[in-house]
Amino acid sequence: MTIPATVTIVEVGPRDGFQLEPAIIPTDLKIEIIKGLAAAGLKHIQVASFVNPRRVPQMADAEDLVRRLPSSSPAAFFGLALNARGVIRARDSGLACIEVSISASDAHSRKNAGMSHADALREGKKMVGTAAAAGMRVTASVQCAFGCVYEGPVPESRVLESVRMFVAAGVERVTLADTTGMGTPPAVERMLERIRMLGADVPIGLHLHDTRGLGLVNAAAGLRSGVTAFDTALGGMGGCPFVAGAAGNIATEDTVYLLEAMGAATGVDRHAVASCSRRLSRFLGKDLPGRLYRMA
Amino acid sequence: MTIPATVTIVEVGPRDGFQLEPAIIPTDLKIEIIKGLAAAGLKHIQVASFVNPRRVPQMADAEDLVRRLPSSSPAAFFGLALNARGVIRARDSGLACIEVSISASDAHSRKNAGMSHADALREGKKMVGTAAAAGMRVTASVQCAFGCVYEGPVPESRVLESVRMFVAAGVERVTLADTTGMGTPPAVERMLERIRMLGADVPIGLHLHDTRGLGLVNAAAGLRSGVTAFDTALGGMGGCPFVAGAAGNIATEDTVYLLEAMGAATGVDRHAVASCSRRLSRFLGKDLPGRLYRMA
Repeated sequence: MTIPATVTIVEVGPRDGFQLEPAIIPTDLKIEIIKGLAAAGLKHIQVASFVNPRRVPQMADAEDLVRRLPSSSPAAFFGLALNARGVIRARDSGLACIEVSISASDAHSRKNAGMSHADALREGKKMVGTAAAAGMRVTASVQCAFGCVYEGPVPESRVLESVRMFVAAGVERVTLADTTGMGTPPAVERMLERIRMLGADVPIGLHLHDTRGLGLVNAAAGLRSGVTAFDTALGGMGGCPFVAGAAGNIATEDTVYLLEAMGAATGVDRHAVASCSRRLSRFLGKDLPGRLYRMA
Repeated sequence: MTIPATVTIVEVGPRDGFQLEPAIIPTDLKIEIIKGLAAAGLKHIQVASFVNPRRVPQMADAEDLVRRLPSSSPAAFFGLALNARGVIRARDSGLACIEVSISASDAHSRKNAGMSHADALREGKKMVGTAAAAGMRVTASVQCAFGCVYEGPVPESRVLESVRMFVAAGVERVTLADTTGMGTPPAVERMLERIRMLGADVPIGLHLHDTRGLGLVNAAAGLRSGVTAFDTALGGMGGCPFVAGAAGNIATEDTVYLLEAMGAATGVDRHAVASCSRRLSRFLGKDLPGRLYRMA
Protein backbone atom coordinates (compact mmCIF):
# COMPACT_ATOMS: atom_id res chain seq x y z
CA MET A 1 0.00 0.00 0.00
CA THR A 2 1.22 3.51 -0.78
CA ILE A 3 1.90 5.96 2.04
CA PRO A 4 -0.80 8.68 1.97
CA ALA A 5 0.66 12.02 0.78
CA THR A 6 -1.12 13.97 3.51
CA VAL A 7 -2.60 12.94 6.84
CA THR A 8 -4.70 14.63 9.51
CA ILE A 9 -3.41 15.03 13.04
CA VAL A 10 -6.25 15.18 15.56
CA GLU A 11 -4.96 16.83 18.71
CA VAL A 12 -6.65 15.21 21.71
CA GLY A 13 -4.37 16.59 24.43
CA PRO A 14 -6.79 19.13 25.94
CA ARG A 15 -9.37 16.31 26.24
CA ASP A 16 -7.73 12.88 26.57
CA GLY A 17 -4.37 14.26 27.66
CA PHE A 18 -5.65 16.53 30.42
CA GLN A 19 -8.59 14.54 31.75
CA LEU A 20 -6.72 12.33 34.19
CA GLU A 21 -4.18 14.84 35.48
CA PRO A 22 -4.76 15.10 39.23
CA ALA A 23 -3.84 18.82 39.21
CA ILE A 24 -6.67 20.91 37.76
CA ILE A 25 -5.34 22.91 34.83
CA PRO A 26 -6.79 26.44 34.92
CA THR A 27 -9.16 27.28 32.06
CA ASP A 28 -6.89 30.21 31.14
CA LEU A 29 -3.95 27.87 30.61
CA LYS A 30 -6.10 25.42 28.65
CA ILE A 31 -7.14 28.27 26.33
CA GLU A 32 -3.51 29.41 25.97
CA ILE A 33 -2.46 25.86 25.02
CA ILE A 34 -5.37 25.38 22.59
CA LYS A 35 -4.46 28.66 20.87
CA GLY A 36 -0.82 27.53 20.70
CA LEU A 37 -1.84 24.22 19.15
CA ALA A 38 -4.01 25.96 16.55
CA ALA A 39 -1.11 28.31 15.75
CA ALA A 40 1.09 25.21 15.28
CA GLY A 41 -1.12 24.17 12.38
CA LEU A 42 -3.44 21.66 14.08
CA LYS A 43 -6.81 21.82 12.33
CA HIS A 44 -8.72 19.33 14.53
CA ILE A 45 -8.52 19.85 18.29
CA GLN A 46 -10.58 17.99 20.90
CA VAL A 47 -11.03 20.63 23.58
CA ALA A 48 -13.18 18.92 26.22
CA SER A 49 -15.33 15.92 27.00
CA PHE A 50 -18.93 16.36 28.04
CA VAL A 51 -19.06 13.74 30.75
CA ASN A 52 -20.01 13.68 34.43
CA PRO A 53 -17.85 16.37 36.13
CA ARG A 54 -17.97 14.39 39.38
CA ARG A 55 -16.22 11.51 37.64
CA VAL A 56 -13.83 13.69 35.59
CA PRO A 57 -13.25 16.91 37.55
CA GLN A 58 -10.69 18.15 34.99
CA MET A 59 -13.55 18.55 32.49
CA ALA A 60 -15.91 20.44 34.83
CA ASP A 61 -15.08 23.69 33.02
CA ALA A 62 -16.13 22.38 29.58
CA GLU A 63 -18.90 24.93 28.97
CA ASP A 64 -16.83 27.82 30.31
CA LEU A 65 -13.85 26.77 28.18
CA VAL A 66 -15.94 26.59 25.00
CA ARG A 67 -17.25 30.14 25.64
CA ARG A 68 -13.65 31.37 25.77
CA LEU A 69 -12.41 29.68 22.60
CA PRO A 70 -11.33 32.06 19.83
CA SER A 71 -14.42 32.74 17.70
CA SER A 72 -12.37 32.72 14.53
CA SER A 73 -9.70 30.04 14.13
CA PRO A 74 -8.39 27.85 11.30
CA ALA A 75 -8.85 24.93 13.72
CA ALA A 76 -12.12 23.06 14.24
CA PHE A 77 -12.83 22.52 17.92
CA PHE A 78 -14.41 19.19 18.86
CA GLY A 79 -16.08 18.02 22.03
CA LEU A 80 -16.31 14.36 23.01
CA ALA A 81 -19.53 12.65 24.09
CA LEU A 82 -20.34 9.14 25.31
CA ASN A 83 -24.12 9.59 25.28
CA ALA A 84 -26.82 11.78 23.75
CA ARG A 85 -26.92 13.94 26.89
CA GLY A 86 -23.25 14.80 26.26
CA VAL A 87 -23.99 15.72 22.64
CA ILE A 88 -26.75 18.06 23.79
CA ARG A 89 -24.46 19.69 26.38
CA ALA A 90 -21.79 20.19 23.68
CA ARG A 91 -24.34 21.66 21.28
CA ASP A 92 -25.78 23.97 23.94
CA SER A 93 -22.26 25.13 24.83
CA GLY A 94 -21.92 26.42 21.28
CA LEU A 95 -19.55 23.82 19.84
CA ALA A 96 -20.05 23.07 16.15
CA CYS A 97 -18.15 19.75 16.07
CA ILE A 98 -18.47 16.57 18.13
CA GLU A 99 -16.77 13.20 18.37
CA VAL A 100 -19.15 10.50 19.54
CA SER A 101 -17.57 7.45 21.09
CA ILE A 102 -18.61 3.95 22.11
CA SER A 103 -16.62 0.97 23.38
CA ALA A 104 -16.36 -2.38 21.64
CA SER A 105 -15.70 -3.96 25.03
CA ASP A 106 -18.79 -4.78 27.04
CA ALA A 107 -16.94 -4.59 30.37
CA HIS A 108 -15.25 -1.27 29.51
CA SER A 109 -18.52 0.18 28.17
CA ARG A 110 -20.23 -0.56 31.49
CA LYS A 111 -17.40 1.04 33.49
CA ASN A 112 -16.79 4.03 31.22
CA ALA A 113 -20.28 4.82 29.95
CA GLY A 114 -22.56 2.90 32.31
CA MET A 115 -24.16 0.80 29.59
CA SER A 116 -23.67 -2.52 27.80
CA HIS A 117 -22.03 -2.60 24.37
CA ALA A 118 -25.42 -3.43 22.83
CA ASP A 119 -26.94 -0.32 24.45
CA ALA A 120 -23.89 1.73 23.40
CA LEU A 121 -24.47 0.71 19.78
CA ARG A 122 -28.00 2.12 19.98
CA GLU A 123 -26.74 5.20 21.84
CA GLY A 124 -24.08 5.73 19.15
CA LYS A 125 -26.71 5.93 16.44
CA LYS A 126 -28.79 8.29 18.60
CA MET A 127 -25.75 10.52 19.27
CA VAL A 128 -25.01 10.88 15.57
CA GLY A 129 -28.68 11.67 14.86
CA THR A 130 -28.85 14.27 17.64
CA ALA A 131 -25.63 15.96 16.46
CA ALA A 132 -26.63 15.89 12.80
CA ALA A 133 -30.05 17.39 13.63
CA ALA A 134 -28.18 20.25 15.32
CA GLY A 135 -26.06 20.73 12.17
CA MET A 136 -22.84 19.65 13.90
CA ARG A 137 -19.84 18.01 12.21
CA VAL A 138 -19.64 14.46 13.57
CA THR A 139 -16.71 12.07 13.85
CA ALA A 140 -16.88 8.78 15.73
CA SER A 141 -14.57 6.45 17.60
CA VAL A 142 -14.66 2.84 18.73
CA GLN A 143 -12.79 2.29 22.01
CA CYS A 144 -10.98 -0.92 22.98
CA ALA A 145 -10.77 -1.88 19.29
CA PHE A 146 -7.61 -3.92 19.94
CA GLY A 147 -8.42 -5.48 23.30
CA CYS A 148 -9.51 -4.51 26.78
CA VAL A 149 -7.75 -4.75 30.13
CA TYR A 150 -11.02 -5.79 31.79
CA GLU A 151 -12.29 -8.18 29.15
CA GLY A 152 -9.16 -9.38 27.34
CA PRO A 153 -9.50 -9.94 23.60
CA VAL A 154 -12.46 -8.09 22.10
CA PRO A 155 -14.35 -9.94 19.32
CA GLU A 156 -13.48 -8.48 15.93
CA SER A 157 -17.17 -8.70 15.02
CA ARG A 158 -18.06 -6.17 17.73
CA VAL A 159 -15.54 -3.68 16.36
CA LEU A 160 -16.80 -4.21 12.81
CA GLU A 161 -20.48 -3.83 13.72
CA SER A 162 -19.63 -0.59 15.56
CA VAL A 163 -17.81 0.74 12.49
CA ARG A 164 -20.71 -0.30 10.24
CA MET A 165 -23.23 1.43 12.52
CA PHE A 166 -21.27 4.70 12.49
CA VAL A 167 -20.72 4.57 8.71
CA ALA A 168 -24.41 3.94 8.13
CA ALA A 169 -25.25 6.81 10.48
CA GLY A 170 -23.16 9.11 8.27
CA VAL A 171 -20.14 10.23 10.34
CA GLU A 172 -17.24 11.88 8.51
CA ARG A 173 -14.54 9.58 9.98
CA VAL A 174 -14.35 6.49 12.21
CA THR A 175 -11.38 6.17 14.54
CA LEU A 176 -10.24 2.87 16.04
CA ALA A 177 -9.07 3.56 19.58
CA ASP A 178 -6.46 1.38 21.26
CA THR A 179 -7.62 2.62 24.65
CA THR A 180 -5.19 0.64 26.78
CA GLY A 181 -2.33 0.18 24.31
CA MET A 182 -2.88 -3.49 23.48
CA GLY A 183 -2.47 -3.21 19.71
CA THR A 184 0.46 -4.63 17.77
CA PRO A 185 1.43 -4.05 14.12
CA PRO A 186 -0.10 -7.37 12.94
CA ALA A 187 -3.34 -6.69 14.88
CA VAL A 188 -3.57 -3.16 13.45
CA GLU A 189 -2.93 -4.39 9.92
CA ARG A 190 -5.47 -7.21 10.22
CA MET A 191 -8.22 -4.97 11.60
CA LEU A 192 -7.66 -2.36 8.88
CA GLU A 193 -7.83 -5.09 6.25
CA ARG A 194 -11.14 -6.33 7.71
CA ILE A 195 -12.54 -2.80 7.63
CA ARG A 196 -11.39 -2.34 4.04
CA MET A 197 -13.34 -5.51 3.21
CA LEU A 198 -16.51 -3.84 4.55
CA GLY A 199 -16.19 -1.48 1.57
CA ALA A 200 -17.04 1.48 3.83
CA ASP A 201 -16.27 4.72 2.03
CA VAL A 202 -15.13 6.71 5.07
CA PRO A 203 -11.67 7.72 6.31
CA ILE A 204 -10.34 5.54 9.13
CA GLY A 205 -8.35 7.04 11.98
CA LEU A 206 -6.21 5.54 14.75
CA HIS A 207 -6.13 6.60 18.39
CA LEU A 208 -3.09 4.98 20.01
CA HIS A 209 -1.75 4.79 23.53
CA ASP A 210 1.85 3.97 24.34
CA THR A 211 1.11 1.74 27.33
CA ARG A 212 3.30 -1.11 26.08
CA GLY A 213 5.72 1.04 24.07
CA LEU A 214 4.17 0.26 20.68
CA GLY A 215 2.24 3.50 20.09
CA LEU A 216 4.42 4.84 17.28
CA VAL A 217 5.13 1.38 15.87
CA ASN A 218 1.38 0.94 15.46
CA ALA A 219 1.09 4.41 13.92
CA ALA A 220 3.71 3.46 11.31
CA ALA A 221 1.87 0.19 10.61
CA GLY A 222 -1.38 2.13 10.27
CA LEU A 223 0.14 4.67 7.89
CA ARG A 224 1.43 1.86 5.69
CA SER A 225 -2.08 0.36 5.75
CA GLY A 226 -3.59 3.61 4.47
CA VAL A 227 -4.75 5.31 7.68
CA THR A 228 -5.10 9.05 7.07
CA ALA A 229 -5.88 10.41 10.56
CA PHE A 230 -4.06 10.01 13.86
CA ASP A 231 -5.19 11.13 17.31
CA THR A 232 -2.23 12.46 19.29
CA ALA A 233 -1.65 14.47 22.45
CA LEU A 234 1.00 17.13 22.96
CA GLY A 235 3.94 15.74 24.95
CA GLY A 236 2.35 12.28 24.99
CA MET A 237 0.01 13.31 27.79
CA GLY A 238 -2.74 11.04 29.07
CA GLY A 239 -3.06 7.78 30.84
CA CYS A 240 -4.43 7.10 34.26
CA PRO A 241 -2.28 8.10 37.24
CA PHE A 242 -4.06 5.43 39.30
CA VAL A 243 -3.16 2.47 37.08
CA ALA A 244 0.43 1.24 37.33
CA GLY A 245 2.13 1.42 33.97
CA ALA A 246 -0.68 3.21 32.16
CA ALA A 247 0.79 5.54 29.61
CA GLY A 248 -0.34 8.42 27.51
CA ASN A 249 -1.38 9.00 23.95
CA ILE A 250 1.28 9.03 21.26
CA ALA A 251 2.94 12.46 21.40
CA THR A 252 1.85 14.95 18.74
CA GLU A 253 5.34 16.26 18.02
CA ASP A 254 6.91 12.76 17.94
CA THR A 255 4.14 11.46 15.65
CA VAL A 256 4.53 14.41 13.29
CA TYR A 257 8.29 13.71 13.13
CA LEU A 258 7.66 10.04 12.30
CA LEU A 259 4.90 10.57 9.73
CA GLU A 260 6.82 13.31 7.91
CA ALA A 261 9.95 11.10 7.88
CA MET A 262 7.84 8.39 6.26
CA GLY A 263 6.69 10.81 3.57
CA ALA A 264 3.26 11.95 4.80
CA ALA A 265 2.72 15.72 5.15
CA THR A 266 0.91 16.83 8.32
CA GLY A 267 0.93 20.64 8.04
CA VAL A 268 1.92 20.75 11.71
CA ASP A 269 4.96 22.63 13.10
CA ARG A 270 6.28 20.12 15.63
CA HIS A 271 8.61 22.67 17.22
CA ALA A 272 5.63 24.89 18.03
CA VAL A 273 3.79 21.89 19.53
CA ALA A 274 6.89 21.01 21.59
CA SER A 275 6.88 24.54 22.96
CA CYS A 276 3.29 23.99 24.23
CA SER A 277 4.40 20.69 25.80
CA ARG A 278 7.24 22.41 27.63
CA ARG A 279 4.79 25.00 28.95
CA LEU A 280 2.58 22.25 30.37
CA SER A 281 5.51 20.27 31.73
CA ARG A 282 6.57 23.37 33.65
CA PHE A 283 3.04 23.94 34.98
CA LEU A 284 2.62 20.30 36.07
CA GLY A 285 6.14 20.15 37.50
CA LYS A 286 6.94 16.84 35.86
CA ASP A 287 8.29 15.27 32.71
CA LEU A 288 5.77 14.21 30.09
CA PRO A 289 6.22 10.87 28.28
CA GLY A 290 7.08 12.36 24.87
CA ARG A 291 10.64 12.60 23.61
CA LEU A 292 11.06 15.51 21.20
CA TYR A 293 9.67 18.25 23.44
CA ARG A 294 12.74 17.76 25.66
CA MET A 295 15.03 18.89 22.85
CA ALA A 296 14.44 22.63 23.10
CA MET B 1 10.91 -9.47 2.80
CA THR B 2 9.94 -12.25 5.20
CA ILE B 3 10.14 -11.72 8.96
CA PRO B 4 13.02 -13.84 10.35
CA ALA B 5 11.68 -16.80 12.40
CA THR B 6 14.20 -16.24 15.17
CA VAL B 7 16.28 -13.24 16.19
CA THR B 8 19.07 -12.61 18.66
CA ILE B 9 18.64 -10.11 21.46
CA VAL B 10 21.98 -8.64 22.55
CA GLU B 11 21.59 -7.25 26.06
CA VAL B 12 23.75 -4.12 26.37
CA GLY B 13 22.26 -2.78 29.62
CA PRO B 14 25.21 -3.59 31.92
CA ARG B 15 27.48 -1.77 29.45
CA ASP B 16 25.64 0.91 27.46
CA GLY B 17 22.75 1.15 29.92
CA PHE B 18 24.84 1.57 33.06
CA GLN B 19 27.78 3.57 31.78
CA LEU B 20 26.29 7.03 32.08
CA GLU B 21 24.37 6.59 35.32
CA PRO B 22 25.78 9.15 37.77
CA ALA B 23 25.25 6.74 40.72
CA ILE B 24 27.89 4.01 40.73
CA ILE B 25 26.14 0.64 40.66
CA PRO B 26 27.94 -1.77 43.03
CA THR B 27 29.67 -4.69 41.31
CA ASP B 28 27.54 -7.08 43.41
CA LEU B 29 24.35 -5.62 42.00
CA LYS B 30 25.77 -5.68 38.47
CA ILE B 31 26.53 -9.40 38.88
CA GLU B 32 23.04 -10.04 40.30
CA ILE B 33 21.46 -8.28 37.30
CA ILE B 34 23.69 -10.07 34.78
CA LYS B 35 22.76 -13.43 36.33
CA GLY B 36 19.08 -12.44 36.19
CA LEU B 37 19.40 -11.49 32.51
CA ALA B 38 21.10 -14.79 31.68
CA ALA B 39 18.34 -16.64 33.56
CA ALA B 40 15.79 -14.73 31.45
CA GLY B 41 17.20 -16.41 28.36
CA LEU B 42 19.57 -13.74 27.06
CA LYS B 43 22.45 -15.47 25.32
CA HIS B 44 24.57 -12.40 24.45
CA ILE B 45 25.26 -9.93 27.23
CA GLN B 46 27.64 -6.97 27.07
CA VAL B 47 28.94 -6.77 30.61
CA ALA B 48 31.44 -3.90 30.54
CA SER B 49 33.40 -1.55 28.32
CA PHE B 50 37.18 -1.44 28.50
CA VAL B 51 37.63 2.29 28.26
CA ASN B 52 39.37 4.96 30.31
CA PRO B 53 37.92 4.67 33.86
CA ARG B 54 38.57 8.38 34.43
CA ARG B 55 36.21 9.17 31.57
CA VAL B 56 33.65 6.47 32.41
CA PRO B 57 33.82 5.84 36.18
CA GLN B 58 30.90 3.37 36.06
CA MET B 59 33.17 0.96 34.12
CA ALA B 60 36.15 1.21 36.48
CA ASP B 61 35.27 -2.20 37.95
CA ALA B 62 35.40 -4.00 34.57
CA GLU B 63 38.19 -6.43 35.46
CA ASP B 64 36.77 -7.11 38.91
CA LEU B 65 33.31 -7.71 37.45
CA VAL B 66 34.62 -10.17 34.85
CA ARG B 67 36.38 -12.18 37.59
CA ARG B 68 33.04 -12.53 39.39
CA LEU B 69 30.96 -13.62 36.40
CA PRO B 70 29.54 -17.16 36.67
CA SER B 71 32.11 -19.49 35.13
CA SER B 72 29.41 -21.64 33.56
CA SER B 73 26.48 -19.88 31.92
CA PRO B 74 24.37 -20.40 28.79
CA ALA B 75 25.06 -16.72 28.07
CA ALA B 76 28.15 -15.44 26.28
CA PHE B 77 29.62 -12.41 28.05
CA PHE B 78 31.03 -9.68 25.80
CA GLY B 79 33.23 -6.71 26.57
CA LEU B 80 33.31 -3.59 24.43
CA ALA B 81 36.49 -1.99 23.12
CA LEU B 82 37.20 1.17 21.12
CA ASN B 83 40.90 0.46 20.57
CA ALA B 84 43.41 -2.41 20.63
CA ARG B 85 44.41 -1.51 24.19
CA GLY B 86 40.81 -2.17 25.29
CA VAL B 87 40.81 -5.53 23.50
CA ILE B 88 43.97 -6.52 25.34
CA ARG B 89 42.49 -5.47 28.70
CA ALA B 90 39.37 -7.51 27.96
CA ARG B 91 41.45 -10.53 26.97
CA ASP B 92 43.65 -10.21 30.05
CA SER B 93 40.55 -9.96 32.26
CA GLY B 94 39.58 -13.42 31.05
CA LEU B 95 36.68 -12.53 28.72
CA ALA B 96 36.27 -14.81 25.70
CA CYS B 97 34.09 -12.48 23.63
CA ILE B 98 34.52 -8.90 22.50
CA GLU B 99 32.61 -6.32 20.53
CA VAL B 100 34.91 -3.89 18.75
CA SER B 101 33.41 -0.57 17.80
CA ILE B 102 34.30 2.41 15.62
CA SER B 103 32.35 5.52 14.66
CA ALA B 104 31.39 6.48 11.12
CA SER B 105 31.35 10.11 12.23
CA ASP B 106 34.70 11.82 12.21
CA ALA B 107 33.66 14.37 14.87
CA HIS B 108 32.17 11.69 17.15
CA SER B 109 35.19 9.41 16.67
CA ARG B 110 37.52 12.19 17.83
CA LYS B 111 35.37 12.90 20.91
CA ASN B 112 34.58 9.32 21.83
CA ALA B 113 37.75 7.48 20.84
CA GLY B 114 40.31 10.26 20.41
CA MET B 115 41.05 9.46 16.76
CA SER B 116 39.84 10.39 13.29
CA HIS B 117 37.47 8.08 11.42
CA ALA B 118 40.34 7.12 9.09
CA ASP B 119 42.47 6.11 12.08
CA ALA B 120 39.49 4.27 13.62
CA LEU B 121 39.14 2.21 10.43
CA ARG B 122 42.76 1.06 10.83
CA GLU B 123 42.24 0.54 14.56
CA GLY B 124 39.13 -1.55 13.85
CA LYS B 125 41.10 -3.95 11.71
CA LYS B 126 43.82 -4.11 14.36
CA MET B 127 41.27 -4.78 17.11
CA VAL B 128 39.75 -7.70 15.20
CA GLY B 129 43.22 -9.12 14.53
CA THR B 130 44.25 -8.79 18.18
CA ALA B 131 41.07 -10.46 19.40
CA ALA B 132 41.21 -13.24 16.81
CA ALA B 133 44.85 -13.94 17.69
CA ALA B 134 43.68 -14.41 21.29
CA GLY B 135 40.99 -16.84 20.14
CA MET B 136 38.15 -14.51 21.14
CA ARG B 137 34.69 -14.37 19.52
CA VAL B 138 34.46 -11.00 17.79
CA THR B 139 31.43 -8.91 16.85
CA ALA B 140 31.69 -5.35 15.56
CA SER B 141 29.63 -2.19 15.52
CA VAL B 142 29.61 1.04 13.54
CA GLN B 143 28.48 4.02 15.60
CA CYS B 144 26.59 7.05 14.25
CA ALA B 145 25.49 4.98 11.26
CA PHE B 146 22.37 7.14 10.84
CA GLY B 147 23.75 10.57 11.63
CA CYS B 148 25.68 12.42 14.31
CA VAL B 149 24.68 15.24 16.62
CA TYR B 150 28.13 16.82 16.19
CA GLU B 151 28.53 16.32 12.47
CA GLY B 152 24.96 16.07 11.12
CA PRO B 153 24.41 13.64 8.26
CA VAL B 154 27.15 10.99 8.03
CA PRO B 155 28.17 9.98 4.49
CA GLU B 156 26.72 6.58 3.63
CA SER B 157 30.06 5.68 2.07
CA ARG B 158 31.78 5.91 5.46
CA VAL B 159 29.28 3.50 6.99
CA LEU B 160 29.66 1.10 4.09
CA GLU B 161 33.47 1.14 4.13
CA SER B 162 33.37 0.44 7.88
CA VAL B 163 31.06 -2.53 7.33
CA ARG B 164 33.28 -3.81 4.49
CA MET B 165 36.39 -3.53 6.66
CA PHE B 166 34.82 -5.51 9.49
CA VAL B 167 33.41 -8.17 7.14
CA ALA B 168 36.82 -8.57 5.47
CA ALA B 169 38.45 -8.83 8.91
CA GLY B 170 36.14 -11.75 9.70
CA VAL B 171 33.80 -10.65 12.50
CA GLU B 172 30.74 -12.79 13.21
CA ARG B 173 28.23 -9.90 13.04
CA VAL B 174 28.23 -6.19 12.19
CA THR B 175 25.83 -3.94 14.07
CA LEU B 176 24.74 -0.53 12.83
CA ALA B 177 24.45 1.76 15.83
CA ASP B 178 22.07 4.72 15.86
CA THR B 179 24.08 6.30 18.66
CA THR B 180 21.99 9.45 19.08
CA GLY B 181 18.63 8.21 17.83
CA MET B 182 18.61 9.97 14.45
CA GLY B 183 17.39 7.03 12.35
CA THR B 184 13.98 6.82 10.72
CA PRO B 185 12.29 3.83 9.05
CA PRO B 186 13.17 5.00 5.51
CA ALA B 187 16.81 5.65 6.53
CA VAL B 188 17.07 2.23 8.19
CA GLU B 189 15.54 0.48 5.18
CA ARG B 190 17.80 2.33 2.72
CA MET B 191 20.99 1.57 4.65
CA LEU B 192 20.11 -2.12 4.98
CA GLU B 193 19.41 -2.26 1.25
CA ARG B 194 22.84 -0.69 0.53
CA ILE B 195 24.52 -3.25 2.78
CA ARG B 196 22.66 -6.10 1.11
CA MET B 197 24.05 -4.80 -2.20
CA LEU B 198 27.58 -5.25 -0.80
CA GLY B 199 26.84 -8.98 -0.86
CA ALA B 200 28.45 -9.35 2.56
CA ASP B 201 27.66 -12.75 4.01
CA VAL B 202 27.42 -11.71 7.65
CA PRO B 203 24.43 -11.12 9.96
CA ILE B 204 23.56 -7.44 10.42
CA GLY B 205 22.41 -6.11 13.78
CA LEU B 206 20.80 -2.85 14.88
CA HIS B 207 21.63 -0.83 18.00
CA LEU B 208 18.88 1.75 18.48
CA HIS B 209 18.35 4.63 20.86
CA ASP B 210 14.95 6.14 21.55
CA THR B 211 16.11 9.77 21.64
CA ARG B 212 13.42 10.96 19.23
CA GLY B 213 10.84 8.28 20.09
CA LEU B 214 11.51 6.12 17.02
CA GLY B 215 13.57 3.34 18.61
CA LEU B 216 10.98 0.58 18.32
CA VAL B 217 9.62 1.91 15.01
CA ASN B 218 13.13 1.52 13.60
CA ALA B 219 13.42 -1.97 15.13
CA ALA B 220 10.19 -3.00 13.36
CA ALA B 221 11.50 -1.54 10.09
CA GLY B 222 14.78 -3.40 10.59
CA LEU B 223 13.03 -6.70 11.30
CA ARG B 224 11.00 -6.34 8.11
CA SER B 225 14.28 -5.67 6.27
CA GLY B 226 15.79 -8.92 7.54
CA VAL B 227 17.78 -7.78 10.57
CA THR B 228 18.35 -10.75 12.89
CA ALA B 229 20.03 -9.14 15.94
CA PHE B 230 18.96 -6.25 18.13
CA ASP B 231 20.93 -4.53 20.87
CA THR B 232 18.63 -3.63 23.77
CA ALA B 233 18.99 -2.56 27.40
CA LEU B 234 16.77 -3.68 30.28
CA GLY B 235 14.23 -0.97 31.16
CA GLY B 236 15.44 1.17 28.25
CA MET B 237 18.44 2.32 30.28
CA GLY B 238 21.15 4.49 28.79
CA GLY B 239 21.56 7.96 27.42
CA CYS B 240 23.56 10.79 28.81
CA PRO B 241 22.22 12.54 31.92
CA PHE B 242 24.13 15.66 30.89
CA VAL B 243 22.50 16.09 27.48
CA ALA B 244 18.92 17.44 27.46
CA GLY B 245 16.57 15.02 25.80
CA ALA B 246 19.09 12.20 25.43
CA ALA B 247 17.31 8.90 25.82
CA GLY B 248 18.22 5.31 26.40
CA ASN B 249 18.50 2.19 24.34
CA ILE B 250 15.33 0.45 23.24
CA ALA B 251 14.09 -1.54 26.26
CA THR B 252 14.80 -5.28 26.18
CA GLU B 253 11.37 -6.34 27.49
CA ASP B 254 9.49 -3.91 25.17
CA THR B 255 11.54 -5.02 22.15
CA VAL B 256 10.94 -8.70 22.93
CA TYR B 257 7.19 -7.98 23.15
CA LEU B 258 7.26 -6.22 19.75
CA LEU B 259 9.41 -8.76 17.91
CA GLU B 260 7.41 -11.73 19.22
CA ALA B 261 4.15 -9.96 18.26
CA MET B 262 5.56 -9.60 14.74
CA GLY B 263 6.33 -13.31 14.59
CA ALA B 264 10.05 -13.50 15.46
CA ALA B 265 11.01 -15.79 18.35
CA THR B 266 13.58 -14.37 20.78
CA GLY B 267 13.90 -17.08 23.44
CA VAL B 268 13.75 -14.33 26.07
CA ASP B 269 11.30 -14.23 29.00
CA ARG B 270 10.32 -10.57 29.02
CA HIS B 271 8.68 -10.82 32.44
CA ALA B 272 11.97 -12.01 33.95
CA VAL B 273 13.79 -9.10 32.28
CA ALA B 274 11.16 -6.67 33.60
CA SER B 275 11.82 -7.98 37.08
CA CYS B 276 15.53 -7.05 36.70
CA SER B 277 14.47 -3.59 35.47
CA ARG B 278 12.29 -3.07 38.54
CA ARG B 279 15.23 -4.06 40.77
CA LEU B 280 17.41 -1.42 39.11
CA SER B 281 14.67 1.21 39.15
CA ARG B 282 14.39 0.70 42.92
CA PHE B 283 18.16 0.95 43.39
CA LEU B 284 18.45 4.10 41.27
CA GLY B 285 15.35 5.63 42.86
CA LYS B 286 13.86 6.70 39.54
CA ASP B 287 11.69 5.53 36.68
CA LEU B 288 13.45 4.02 33.68
CA PRO B 289 12.28 4.94 30.16
CA GLY B 290 10.84 1.50 29.30
CA ARG B 291 7.12 0.77 29.46
CA LEU B 292 6.47 -2.89 30.19
CA TYR B 293 8.60 -3.18 33.34
CA ARG B 294 6.06 -0.89 35.04
CA MET B 295 3.32 -3.50 34.62
CA ALA B 296 4.32 -5.84 37.43
